[in-house]
Amino acid sequence: MAKISTKAELMPASAIRKLVPLADAAKKNGVKVYHLNIGQPDIKSPRCALEAVKSNNLVNVSYSNSAGLIELREGLVNKYYKNIGINIEVPELIVTIAGSESVNLSLEITCNPGDEVLVLEPFYTNYNTFAFMNGLTLKAIPTDIRNGFQVPPIEEFEKAITDKTKAILVCNPGNPTGTLYSKESMLALGDIARKHDLFLISDEVYREFCYTDEPHFSAMHIPDLEQNVILVDSVSKRYNLCGARIGCIVSHNKEVMAAAMKFAQARLCPPVLGQIAAIGALDTPQEYFDAVREEYIKRRNYMIEGLNKIPGVFTPLPMGAFYTIAELPVDNTENFARWMLESFRIDNETTMVTPAASFYKTPGKGLNHARIAYVLEIPEMEKAIRILAEGLAQYPGRTI
Amino acid sequence: MAKISTKAELMPASAIRKLVPLADAAKKNGVKVYHLNIGQPDIKSPRCALEAVKSNNLVNVSYSNSAGLIELREGLVNKYYKNIGINIEVPELIVTIAGSESVNLSLEITCNPGDEVLVLEPFYTNYNTFAFMNGLTLKAIPTDIRNGFQVPPIEEFEKAITDKTKAILVCNPGNPTGTLYSKESMLALGDIARKHDLFLISDEVYREFCYTDEPHFSAMHIPDLEQNVILVDSVSKRYNLCGARIGCIVSHNKEVMAAAMKFAQARLCPPVLGQIAAIGALDTPQEYFDAVREEYIKRRNYMIEGLNKIPGVFTPLPMGAFYTIAELPVDNTENFARWMLESFRIDNETTMVTPAASFYKTPGKGLNHARIAYVLEIPEMEKAIRILAEGLAQYPGRTI
Repeated sequence: MAKISTKAELMPASAIRKLVPLADAAKKNGVKVYHLNIGQPDIKSPRCALEAVKSNNLVNVSYSNSAGLIELREGLVNKYYKNIGINIEVPELIVTIAGSESVNLSLEITCNPGDEVLVLEPFYTNYNTFAFMNGLTLKAIPTDIRNGFQVPPIEEFEKAITDKTKAILVCNPGNPTGTLYSKESMLALGDIARKHDLFLISDEVYREFCYTDEPHFSAMHIPDLEQNVILVDSVSKRYNLCGARIGCIVSHNKEVMAAAMKFAQARLCPPVLGQIAAIGALDTPQEYFDAVREEYIKRRNYMIEGLNKIPGVFTPLPMGAFYTIAELPVDNTENFARWMLESFRIDNETTMVTPAASFYKTPGKGLNHARIAYVLEIPEMEKAIRILAEGLAQYPGRTI
Repeated sequence: MAKISTKAELMPASAIRKLVPLADAAKKNGVKVYHLNIGQPDIKSPRCALEAVKSNNLVNVSYSNSAGLIELREGLVNKYYKNIGINIEVPELIVTIAGSESVNLSLEITCNPGDEVLVLEPFYTNYNTFAFMNGLTLKAIPTDIRNGFQVPPIEEFEKAITDKTKAILVCNPGNPTGTLYSKESMLALGDIARKHDLFLISDEVYREFCYTDEPHFSAMHIPDLEQNVILVDSVSKRYNLCGARIGCIVSHNKEVMAAAMKFAQARLCPPVLGQIAAIGALDTPQEYFDAVREEYIKRRNYMIEGLNKIPGVFTPLPMGAFYTIAELPVDNTENFARWMLESFRIDNETTMVTPAASFYKTPGKGLNHARIAYVLEIPEMEKAIRILAEGLAQYPGRTI
């Protein structure tokens, strides 16, 4: 029988979806599952975005420019980025099929097979997938849950850099940690990128989900690094339009943008109906973001307090995104998560978390960590946490 | 300065967009350009597809399953494919980001870098791009404009097959030729695939644009080849929703589909608003297709007759898609196309064609061929052809 490619064979399956069949089986048996495992927010998309789609008067949904509809590109440059102090020209931005295409393109454009990319561990699992697809090696720079996964001393980077190192890939605020890097940390990363002439690929798709009072400090704000910074951004994430699949890649580096355009042309154009939603979303009033932010701060505080009250659980206070990593008093979070889905119920309900080992590259790390998303309303979270606490108390593999 | 990857550097730019800046420059100077160069149809999308988008009542455009919304997958399987005698189960189909992702996935899943893929020449230029991106070699099987680019004797394939050959990639009906392959030709391709255990990747995105009275014979209809056939399809192309970016990959081969799912998960999900349009499009009445078909037959006949009346021009009668390849009486179609855009006007209007050499892999082939799309209304085509004929008469590089 005709054999599939080695790449297809070895391609890692989505680790975070591994337990989904168990959740589906539980639901089939009438069990209610509280999903703390996924980053699918229940927050409404902005009305102006939905209205733009509903009131569109296209008679033919035809191709757009490979770089995206000009109204969207100009809108992003002049309405959105200018507003947050990122000054770019229209040719320095290409609309992508969400943040996913933007990350993959950034790696594909900058790295040859065999090249190394530094990434703060734990990190978004699909970085691993995209690295695999491009034949790259991710090199994990360890961080520490006890200090909230902050950027470690710069020596850790110096130690990891070899002549194969081509880029630093950073997610700020971070998935899965929710960690927000300070201006000082970003400047330190910039120094190391400048010193070794590395690309700094900055995934800032959670930029509007920051819970400090300071403005977000973007990699695009780092002085004297114009030719090295590539910004990965997501319009669909920012405006709770995840399914619209619209993002962008941004850089002052002309070579990078010219290359990105060649790849963009190969897939003809980004989805046009999503682009129409995105154009509408550009008019989202500040009150929308304020309300979303207030809601997430409430949920985060509730979740973090609830988790830290459970004996043996520790989680830091994340300052961005809508995730946190929690240390659980168990031997292995994956076994625990399975057990919860298969065997543990309170009033025929259970709670699902994501085992966090898949966010680590270093073997053995994160085995007792779980990623928890605070994307449910508080009454739901209340029950989810209560069930989690009781599950931890009764779990045979508990360590305290 | 940090250097981009070798792949990014060597990645071919879109050959068919190379002349676009010249067209833009002409338009800026007030010149009207008749676009016979692009496959952007002016045909309206089905009302039911547009209505589905306008009347959607989502409050949050959230992710779909990585394989696509279940309503869409079930609808494609039970409403569309069953209807045309392609019997598949839901897990044998994954919704892709248009035909583009489906082609790329098919190559990525089946071929290792260095593997060879047979393709009938001339072929869609992005096959080349996707082959390059995956490190593959396309091996061109020559066809002949004089017999309408039909599948050559099977010995031509036997001669081209080596131990590196992994797949045959066929486009039926074809872009850029408009050639429709007969049942016999498809069975012959099936025989060769079966004999050498090759994958047969069949790009049938123009299936609904066939101008014979026989039903389209799909690679999925070839007996005893279930494990080798991969179907590339496009919902957005079929329903004149090109910008919606919805297609699918279909195969009875479980290994292929499991691999496709891993790649699908990496990009999270196909565009959801486009999927909503596609679900609506499934209810498109047969009258819509009949009317589109009738319109294209009219345009095709007008175009082919008009072209063949020009001294020195020859084009066969294509039986599918909305393109034809025409032999022009010029030394080099690219130079001629440039000259038309830069220097030739009638009443301040000119005509743009696509030089066809980029659809050939064999050096020197197709230099006097142009791809002509018949996607304009007849009064526009009339003027476009008149200008083309006059341009050919006056062109300094003409050969007759």
